[in-house]
Amino acid sequence: MTFSFSVVLLGLDLAGVFFFAVSGSLLAARKQFDIIGSLLLASVVSLGGGVIRDIIISAGPPAAFTNPAYLAPPLLATVLVYFLFSSVQRFTSLLILFDAGGLALFCITGTLKAMDAGMNPVAAVLLGVTTAVGGGLLRDITANEVPQLFDPKDLYALPAFAGAVLTMILSVTGAFNAVTAGAVAAIVFAFRVTAWRRQWHVPLAVRGWHRLGLDTAEDGAKD
Amino acid sequence: MTFSFSVVLLGLDLAGVFFFAVSGSLLAARKQFDIIGSLLLASVVSLGGGVIRDIIISAGPPAAFTNPAYLAPPLLATVLVYFLFSSVQRFTSLLILFDAGGLALFCITGTLKAMDAGMNPVAAVLLGVTTAVGGGLLRDITANEVPQLFDPKDLYALPAFAGAVLTMILSVTGAFNAVTAGAVAAIVFAFRVTAWRRQWHVPLAVRGWHRLGLDTAEDGAKD
Amino acid sequence: MTFSFSVVLLGLDLAGVFFFAVSGSLLAARKQFDIIGSLLLASVVSLGGGVIRDIIISAGPPAAFTNPAYLAPPLLATVLVYFLFSSVQRFTSLLILFDAGGLALFCITGTLKAMDAGMNPVAAVLLGVTTAVGGGLLRDITANEVPQLFDPKDLYALPAFAGAVLTMILSVTGAFNAVTAGAVAAIVFAFRVTAWRRQWHVPLAVRGWHRLGLDTAEDGAKD
Repeated sequence: MTFSFSVVLLGLDLAGVFFFAVSGSLLAARKQFDIIGSLLLASVVSLGGGVIRDIIISAGPPAAFTNPAYLAPPLLATVLVYFLFSSVQRFTSLLILFDAGGLALFCITGTLKAMDAGMNPVAAVLLGVTTAVGGGLLRDITANEVPQLFDPKDLYALPAFAGAVLTMILSVTGAFNAVTAGAVAAIVFAFRVTAWRRQWHVPLAVRGWHRLGLDTAEDGAKD
Repeated sequence: MTFSFSVVLLGLDLAGVFFFAVSGSLLAARKQFDIIGSLLLASVVSLGGGVIRDIIISAGPPAAFTNPAYLAPPLLATVLVYFLFSSVQRFTSLLILFDAGGLALFCITGTLKAMDAGMNPVAAVLLGVTTAVGGGLLRDITANEVPQLFDPKDLYALPAFAGAVLTMILSVTGAFNAVTAGAVAAIVFAFRVTAWRRQWHVPLAVRGWHRLGLDTAEDGAKD
Repeated sequence: MTFSFSVVLLGLDLAGVFFFAVSGSLLAARKQFDIIGSLLLASVVSLGGGVIRDIIISAGPPAAFTNPAYLAPPLLATVLVYFLFSSVQRFTSLLILFDAGGLALFCITGTLKAMDAGMNPVAAVLLGVTTAVGGGLLRDITANEVPQLFDPKDLYALPAFAGAVLTMILSVTGAFNAVTAGAVAAIVFAFRVTAWRRQWHVPLAVRGWHRLGLDTAEDGAKD
């Protein structure tokens, strides 16, 4: 990997960390955590996915711990949410938008880092998806919520999977560059947000149950 | 480890992965997750325990990421549950049976893999238990349920511990082979399922509280 | 690191493991888990933070698995809680005290182990905090509770952070010894317990919301 490419990759990764960090601080605000809880949840969601990826790749201590630059985004997100948000109404939409931004960047950087570490293409795609959905999963588990990842009204893993596959193909064919990276990020972001707005969904886990409709399904899930 | 032995171990491990994957997809069905949630939960429960084990052993990237064969069982489980199950009634029994199958195989393969990586016998037993109960624990944490592991009406860790100790003794004494492995798996499976059917239980965490009876105990736990 | 210093560090670490193990068994008792659940929860909370730290440091299998001495404290805690506690009244206070003891020792040993493994001072502080709060976080996640770490009426991470920073400064300046270590532990313990008794708190995640008062805030968090 060339130096300039590494810098671009670090920049994309830090931007993804920032987006996810804001989603963590927004959830902390909605759950009425204090400002330290906001910083902790921002750190868990923004750095957790990458830490899991780096541990699985087994290439030494995770970047989030060895490179202090990774601490800036959660701190910034905590401060921004503290000063700028005082209305509860728009929290959900904002959380989805920032979460989608993080997802779009992390499925790219996660896949690339895994390929760069010598993982095979299938493993790289899996690690890209793990990086992208891992932070949000840790956020919801830590805050004791049913993970958004499993919400049948919300496509979450599918856009990340699409982005990781596209990144892997571009990387293997040598067509990965700043323009194609931006295109992949835009596709994943648009896919995720449109799916959420239009309530696109895939079939439920058992054939035939989708006929019941999702409202009924959710009542059943509460039993 | 000889080549043929490695193949047997891989086969046992993949069978355990399949059993746990079915238990994950069944839980996803009961919680009305969609088919992607079913695949994700199947993957978490079936591969999670082994990933934790491989990370602790510190012998490079976990097999679940480097060997694509490990992706087949969760895919197969998701498809089977999607097409074959349309009644809620038998979910709990089926989930217990498949979970017990995974537990019986994973306490064996987890212990053997740890010994093969040079861990001492005590650590190998601990890793066998961790592998066997780790996936189910991740499944319940991810799906935001109180882990089955802590259900006082259900013996869960004890059969896994018995299986790991037996495997370690057989391995150290050189008596481990396909026949004894099958016997250990049968013992753990029968122990787990019989304990569940007959509601065998051990004393509660504080002496004297078992006199209250488990129903009362559970009411108390809800406070 | 000299031999005698290693022994002192191991002793402090094992004492911290014991304190956290008791907090795990006490929570298991309050939740009416059985005695195996008590042992498992004691093990998760007392060994989990150190296992996470050792995995992040990437220096081979975690001490909790390779050194059987680490198994003694959870076993001892489970037995003590089983025989000695039969009254529910004092559980919360006792749990806080033992948890504070573990926190005070783990932020010291976690920071030192990270520096000893060659991590930079910032990473060492982060790992000290991670070690100290990680076990309690795993305990609450595993038992399906909102983590104490996020309770706005309870300062939890701040004392651990203060202890990790003090340890790092003492270590870098060469002033770390048994006396200063004891002083840091006492400060962290007193900080944590006093903050809990007097309900010290920091601002909520969004500016202005603290005016609502914490009771209102908690009602809101339940929505």
